[in-house]
Amino acid sequence: MTLAIAPNDTARTHALLQGERARLAADDAALVAEQVTLSEIAAPTGGESARGAAVAERMRAVGLEVQVDAVGNVIGRRAGGRDAEPVVVCAHLDTVFPPDTDVRVQREGTRLVGAGIGDNARGLAGMLALARAIDGQALRTDRPIDFLATVGEEALGDLRGAKHHFVGAGRDAAAAVILDGPGEERVIHRAVGSRRWRVRFAGPGGHSWSAYGLPNPLNAAGAVASMLAVLPVPNEPRSALTVARIVGGLSVNAIPGDALVEIDLRSVSQEVIERLAREVRAIVDVALGDENARRARGTPPLTVRVELIGDRPGGETADSHPLVTAAAEATRLVGREPELGAASTDANVPISLGIPAVAIGAGGRGGAAHTPQEWFENADGALGIARALTVVCCAAGVVGR
Amino acid sequence: MTLAIAPNDTARTHALLQGERARLAADDAALVAEQVTLSEIAAPTGGESARGAAVAERMRAVGLEVQVDAVGNVIGRRAGGRDAEPVVVCAHLDTVFPPDTDVRVQREGTRLVGAGIGDNARGLAGMLALARAIDGQALRTDRPIDFLATVGEEALGDLRGAKHHFVGAGRDAAAAVILDGPGEERVIHRAVGSRRWRVRFAGPGGHSWSAYGLPNPLNAAGAVASMLAVLPVPNEPRSALTVARIVGGLSVNAIPGDALVEIDLRSVSQEVIERLAREVRAIVDVALGDENARRARGTPPLTVRVELIGDRPGGETADSHPLVTAAAEATRLVGREPELGAASTDANVPISLGIPAVAIGAGGRGGAAHTPQEWFENADGALGIARALTVVCCAAGVVGR
Repeated sequence: MTLAIAPNDTARTHALLQGERARLAADDAALVAEQVTLSEIAAPTGGESARGAAVAERMRAVGLEVQVDAVGNVIGRRAGGRDAEPVVVCAHLDTVFPPDTDVRVQREGTRLVGAGIGDNARGLAGMLALARAIDGQALRTDRPIDFLATVGEEALGDLRGAKHHFVGAGRDAAAAVILDGPGEERVIHRAVGSRRWRVRFAGPGGHSWSAYGLPNPLNAAGAVASMLAVLPVPNEPRSALTVARIVGGLSVNAIPGDALVEIDLRSVSQEVIERLAREVRAIVDVALGDENARRARGTPPLTVRVELIGDRPGGETADSHPLVTAAAEATRLVGREPELGAASTDANVPISLGIPAVAIGAGGRGGAAHTPQEWFENADGALGIARALTVVCCAAGVVGR
Repeated sequence: MTLAIAPNDTARTHALLQGERARLAADDAALVAEQVTLSEIAAPTGGESARGAAVAERMRAVGLEVQVDAVGNVIGRRAGGRDAEPVVVCAHLDTVFPPDTDVRVQREGTRLVGAGIGDNARGLAGMLALARAIDGQALRTDRPIDFLATVGEEALGDLRGAKHHFVGAGRDAAAAVILDGPGEERVIHRAVGSRRWRVRFAGPGGHSWSAYGLPNPLNAAGAVASMLAVLPVPNEPRSALTVARIVGGLSVNAIPGDALVEIDLRSVSQEVIERLAREVRAIVDVALGDENARRARGTPPLTVRVELIGDRPGGETADSHPLVTAAAEATRLVGREPELGAASTDANVPISLGIPAVAIGAGGRGGAAHTPQEWFENADGALGIARALTVVCCAAGVVGR
């Protein structure tokens, strides 16, 4: 069932939510306190269970029907006026920080400083605030809403939680609104997909004089980099192809026994990703074949192993889609100027599956994300929550007002 | 004054030395004991002074006139029958092992196991045995002999000690006989020259999506490797060109800020080294220019720094040269079959300066050089000393017999 948002719905819906906005403003300090509490529960990618349990407990406390799925996602459902395809409100649990990181939050002037305080304790606290506002009684939606706290959004997680949900239990979702970090202006409707490889060339290795003629894994690695450097990569749809690491050789005296190349491919177009991925594979094979053809007769050939170390689907929700226009309009309604953009977030997964999705900030200002000096400042943070509430209620439909 | 060795000199000289050979055989155990003592004095490249002092003390004890030069070489002179250009007998002091290596020597069956026991405690002990045999009284030579214990022969030393000596005080040498490691068959008359570079490409680095378009140092590094891989390198004169290391990039998320390439060029022909060195420099510049030409408008260019990290001159003493034929003949006279060959030793320096030189083993068998499991076995080790004595006496001329 397609998501239906009529042209005037956003302004009308926003007007209906005036009381909720007043309560959100009144509860602003409590929201920030909850954000700090959640941020101080370590949640490295792959180790999200403690934070997940804290989120589940809070979801139950506001009357959601809560499940924890097989990968550790926490899903809390608020029933709708009818048993329709749900709208998913999603925030990721995990942070980029290793388990032993000091996650205590310090107040420095107007700033809260802490690893993960914005990305994504802000998103999680914002999601819980929406679950309180949409209480199913004073404010009730037409569609059910699934509040989804995902695991594995950050780098090595590779959107594992969102993939598990939207491919499985959540495959019938009508729309998804992702809350990721602070801010109240950006509307991410294009999903930067990515594919990443670790390529290892291996050979016998040996002395660079007495064993000269052996194939050199670094020659193959270098050929990969130099061929990729001249491969045409489109600006539109925006795409990027980077050789991000090469490591090989221990000593200037020796032909190395192996060489590693890490390659990062990104695009807002899944078609471009598929096409360039085929080129990457072909170039690796050419580099291998060329170096083996050059080796001295009778020496063992190089081998190659290509490991996929990242795979995030790309795509976009059209900027003319009602969900995107509603998000842009809601941004204006809270007094901000919308900035449509592209990023890699949990929204990649529903977008790639044809489910309309946007990723938006959960209010306030922040910086130094992915560093231990990450900070958050609650400058009109309630505006971001108000914007999100309007977007979610547009998508899910308000009933009984 | 050119070295003069007449066709029959080797056999004649060898015959004159029968008494010395008998004494060398009788003193065989003492020579090995001295080899162990020297091996147990740590002498990493750049930290040879303790071992150098031990060698100097032994040189003085056998009546040589000893000097330690500005770089730490120990030179002990045995006067000749006339004040002519000297013959240099040379052995390197240093080992490849870092200062904290356990240098104790263990006996395991017929083997002595210890870091540096062969390379080059054997050469040093052999050189001292020659200095005892050529005592200036019972055995006296026409030319003076400079017994030279050098610093900085191994990798990072880059033949520093030999360069200092033969370019300076030793520039008038008539010939040089280098004792390096065990063995009594090989005669190294071709000097494998080498030149080594560390090339660093540096750029701003940045996020592989938001900063895409920045020049990538790994693309330049890869281009260097792939261009060098197809550069014609001659088999004759034997030569080798190896990209031995590439290191760049910290994360698959980023365009790296720098990339390092280490290149090793070797040849027995100094002319080939000079020619290929010019090619290497040109290729580095092409790789830099190409990547900078590809970068996005307005982004800062890559820079490159090329550091020379090794420079060993190459060349050869012709296999028809009297010193080489004398060394081959002396090998036969001790009952072994000579193997003429190429290597990189202290002999590179005199050879490149036009001073006839050979490098030979100092007797016995060995293996696992440049590892902590290096071993030496005194199987007829005195033969190697006897061979060296004949070669040195051919070059210096025996007087009074």
